[in-house]
Amino acid sequence: MSNIASAISELKALLGERLSLSPSVIDLHARDEAHFPHTPPDAVVFPNNTAEVSEIAKICHCHGCPIVPWGVGTSLEGHALPLRGGITVDFANMNKVLEVFAEDLNVVVQPGVTREQLNEDLRATGLFFPIDPGANATLGGMTATRASGTTAVRYGTMKDNVLALEVVLADGRIIRTGTRAKKSSAGYDLTRLMVGSEGTLGLITEITLRLQGQPEATAAAVCEFDDTTSAVNAVIMAVQMGLPMARMEFIDAASIKAINAYSDMDMREVPHLFMEFHGTENGVKEQSEQMAEICADFGGGGFQWSTKTEERNKLWKARHTAYFAMKATKPGALGVTTDVCVPISKLAEAIEDTIKDVEAQGLSAPIIGHVGDGNYHCLLLVEPDNPAAMKTATDICHRMNRRALAAGGTVTGEHGIGAGKMKYMAEEHGEAWNIMADIKRALDPSNILNPGKMVQIN
Amino acid sequence: MSNIASAISELKALLGERLSLSPSVIDLHARDEAHFPHTPPDAVVFPNNTAEVSEIAKICHCHGCPIVPWGVGTSLEGHALPLRGGITVDFANMNKVLEVFAEDLNVVVQPGVTREQLNEDLRATGLFFPIDPGANATLGGMTATRASGTTAVRYGTMKDNVLALEVVLADGRIIRTGTRAKKSSAGYDLTRLMVGSEGTLGLITEITLRLQGQPEATAAAVCEFDDTTSAVNAVIMAVQMGLPMARMEFIDAASIKAINAYSDMDMREVPHLFMEFHGTENGVKEQSEQMAEICADFGGGGFQWSTKTEERNKLWKARHTAYFAMKATKPGALGVTTDVCVPISKLAEAIEDTIKDVEAQGLSAPIIGHVGDGNYHCLLLVEPDNPAAMKTATDICHRMNRRALAAGGTVTGEHGIGAGKMKYMAEEHGEAWNIMADIKRALDPSNILNPGKMVQIN
Repeated sequence: MSNIASAISELKALLGERLSLSPSVIDLHARDEAHFPHTPPDAVVFPNNTAEVSEIAKICHCHGCPIVPWGVGTSLEGHALPLRGGITVDFANMNKVLEVFAEDLNVVVQPGVTREQLNEDLRATGLFFPIDPGANATLGGMTATRASGTTAVRYGTMKDNVLALEVVLADGRIIRTGTRAKKSSAGYDLTRLMVGSEGTLGLITEITLRLQGQPEATAAAVCEFDDTTSAVNAVIMAVQMGLPMARMEFIDAASIKAINAYSDMDMREVPHLFMEFHGTENGVKEQSEQMAEICADFGGGGFQWSTKTEERNKLWKARHTAYFAMKATKPGALGVTTDVCVPISKLAEAIEDTIKDVEAQGLSAPIIGHVGDGNYHCLLLVEPDNPAAMKTATDICHRMNRRALAAGGTVTGEHGIGAGKMKYMAEEHGEAWNIMADIKRALDPSNILNPGKMVQIN
Repeated sequence: MSNIASAISELKALLGERLSLSPSVIDLHARDEAHFPHTPPDAVVFPNNTAEVSEIAKICHCHGCPIVPWGVGTSLEGHALPLRGGITVDFANMNKVLEVFAEDLNVVVQPGVTREQLNEDLRATGLFFPIDPGANATLGGMTATRASGTTAVRYGTMKDNVLALEVVLADGRIIRTGTRAKKSSAGYDLTRLMVGSEGTLGLITEITLRLQGQPEATAAAVCEFDDTTSAVNAVIMAVQMGLPMARMEFIDAASIKAINAYSDMDMREVPHLFMEFHGTENGVKEQSEQMAEICADFGGGGFQWSTKTEERNKLWKARHTAYFAMKATKPGALGVTTDVCVPISKLAEAIEDTIKDVEAQGLSAPIIGHVGDGNYHCLLLVEPDNPAAMKTATDICHRMNRRALAAGGTVTGEHGIGAGKMKYMAEEHGEAWNIMADIKRALDPSNILNPGKMVQIN
């Protein structure tokens, strides 16, 4: 029996029906939202609690069987694809909000809770969890990829919003990192080491998250621009002026067109900013008016702002469906996503260079961005089974990444490394990438946790 | 020749006059602000640049000679005391602000730059670096201890304000962690691993920091309370209501008395809150008025707020001298500081229990706190050469730490572990403390970087 088969046999004894070899279940865990080839695990397990996750790790550790954690599969870089087979640990059964500490503005959740589920659960408390990557991802997945999204410009990324973790290590030991206190100087920051480690250092089994009070007032705003550069420059000015913004999204003309079609809207098909401001009634009025002035200075037109919930929801629903709206413009196509983040002063140039590059290939590719953070995405849609088109798309993506690095930025602002960005790790981190491998070896000497990802282990 | 003597001999050849064996220089590096015994290094070196730091590490690595980094010695826990001798690396010559990226709101500095020096340097840009631990510490030291202070309630701690680092590893390799982009999901967060590692994982030779725009308006406010609990409860209410606060400091009656004497002020000798609000003119007015209402609800009196720079500076100067004001109440005494941080809902009880404990010993000990974060300090003043009194003080400190852990908090909100808090690491972190040791072994296999601190290495 192979090491994997031996592990599965023992896991079956432990979990019974909660270990699945069913082709349909395995198939569901062989792909995510990314364009990578179908990569099935040998089995999928559904633990009910931390103790079971620990037992699973012990068995896999003993047999050298790869373990890949799974949330709901919204990854855009193939993080949860089991490149070396083994078992996928699906956290679907560990989906409870364990305890809300409303007075302390924090909450303890299991990794399978999705962000929408959490916010639904919190509704009566007047609190909310702000991080919003668009997809209704699990909080375990969001922690593991250091996710962020539209609200990071105000509330930070997962790194800023995870207070503490419970983690099952490769050998089954269970550790707790951090506390519910708001800050600490006690020791190495293992919480931040686990956030963004993409399942390669441990299996996250419990997450303590910071919460925010619902703002007294929320204003959404929208503005049209004649060209991309003007829109981006308005944002740069607002950031440099320190204007408090809760969301600051750039949507290019092609994306607006896709959204109009997909969400039955009728926005002018020109570059837009979608914005949101949080604060008191007076505060959001003041912020909206200041931003209106900045937009006008950069030729922005039709600036509108509103504190009406319905209008706001419509706007953000449109924004959140942008990815699917874009994909719908070319049914059946594979989506190659990009995710660079650069210092804000380099943002306009970075976006312009991307547009030029895409146009030089005779293609069009919608661009949207969390521009308040210097982070933007360009979606390249490629018909399947067309290697030449795929190469053109990945070449554009490659040049975009190289330019981001040259500008002092990063090849991934929020999507993570997964299977797609490994080739940039050496270039982005240099010698520091070897240190990451040293840490991996220290925590997972048998290399069973999501092997083949994040670091290069001999 | 011992390993240390061999290293010093080679270092002398490298650095010439910039290696000092002078008793006065060594004496200056044998103590910090803490109460620990005089602990001299064998030599002190003053590198001029990263390449020299790398050479120093290579030599020490080769000989197994301990290396302890040094900023300006404002540590309150003996971080920079060379427990096992060896050389102290004083970063006094690496004190340049290397590049201000005003458009990107960040700056690159050498580790020997102090926070006041940086803010002086930034004055013309309209930007500032917000983290303020009180002491005019170096940014290298602040990074290494994950410092915070009065403004953390608004701007976070060093963990939230360091974007990127250059670090010399134990064997002399130079790595860069992070980028100037505002966020990234590319790999393990080595930046956050180094922040707070207290010189045990690497020598920080360059720091990229986030900056903030000077707020349009700043209001300082002060309020008196009849008792500690009312003051703290007002803060808890403000935090839970999401009132934006830039500073939220509790000062007890004993501290006010000490400050009055030290700073020639005449505040009523009752518990106070010192506060600050940042925003627009309207915004800080609104925040001040909201806080005034909250304070009134909890019996606070004499609430005053002002946007006048002079009044604000007087208030914060008084706050910043509190430590020295307290020490001045008992000249020649040793100060035993405490630094717990608890979830905000536990704060009032934690402070009350501390007061009861201190009083039960027949002592008085001033209490001040960054209460918006749940972090507070009690200063125990002990006459030197009185082991019984020192034991009473450290016993109080010990019980305070134990209660903080029981409340789900941490034994250090901002001062760090150093030589003083090692005994709580196992209790606070459990099995996770062993993982910290694994990481230390991976990065510093010879255990030459600030040995004896932070982790237990066999």
